[in-house]
Amino acid sequence: MEKKAIQDYYSDQLSHCYGCGRLNDTGMGIKSYWNEDENTSIARFTPKPYHTAFPGYVYGGLLASLIDCHGTGTASAAAYKSEGRNMGTQPELRYVTASVHVNYLKPTPIDQELELIGRVKEIKGKKVIVEVKLFAKGVLCVQGEVIAVKIPKNMIAT
Amino acid sequence: MEKKAIQDYYSDQLSHCYGCGRLNDTGMGIKSYWNEDENTSIARFTPKPYHTAFPGYVYGGLLASLIDCHGTGTASAAAYKSEGRNMGTQPELRYVTASVHVNYLKPTPIDQELELIGRVKEIKGKKVIVEVKLFAKGVLCVQGEVIAVKIPKNMIAT
Repeated sequence: MEKKAIQDYYSDQLSHCYGCGRLNDTGMGIKSYWNEDENTSIARFTPKPYHTAFPGYVYGGLLASLIDCHGTGTASAAAYKSEGRNMGTQPELRYVTASVHVNYLKPTPIDQELELIGRVKEIKGKKVIVEVKLFAKGVLCVQGEVIAVKIPKNMIAT
Repeated sequence: MEKKAIQDYYSDQLSHCYGCGRLNDTGMGIKSYWNEDENTSIARFTPKPYHTAFPGYVYGGLLASLIDCHGTGTASAAAYKSEGRNMGTQPELRYVTASVHVNYLKPTPIDQELELIGRVKEIKGKKVIVEVKLFAKGVLCVQGEVIAVKIPKNMIAT
């Protein structure tokens, strides 16, 4: 598995995301890793005690955020791979979320590390569809799908 | 429009949500209001400067969180209304998110108050489907749908 996180390859100007930007000091710091052997991506995240939905369980908005950033990160890694290029090379392949769909299958316990596994379902043109499964101690709690698209040029501050 | 927020009717034990719980000191403090005249719900939220996706725009995970809590809040208000009961009366009608679907139609500017309008699409048995539209200065930026279900008894700490 690649040791540097996918998000750490993002250029400085695209690294301010509250979910996963390394230049956002108050953000969540989500980090995704590409697993070449499995052709999947993986992220791990330990919720804070205040990330509650109800006592004992994780807030759904936080789980959606994890799926969102892990999905766009996975899209970026997959796009570089499909072009036979190394991550971080120019022109940058950076993705944004066009839509996210999250199914909460079981309440997600808050007192443990969560694991997210991403798989590319489709990659075509500017669009990548990523399926993300979120586990707590091996139990599938949340399933999501992210439709990611290449970042429009007008979203990039110059 | 009702002056007390829907979430302020939630019982103490169900008011720890990171998104909208009045007893979560570090949370986002989302407040939804029922608008009887329009048969809709409304919430307003001003993002913090660090809630960035990219400089100038709001993080998608935060937008999903707003839709999530506004959706479940709207479900609760609609359920009380459908039973002809006042909000806050027992037994409590509190909803959790079974699924959320968010379409990001336009980048959402970060430097202004956002407005969310919720409408009930369907209410049947334990399930309420709520459509939520999110506007910035009157421009529709995000559209979401929340399938909310009555909180399972095993999610309530006793």
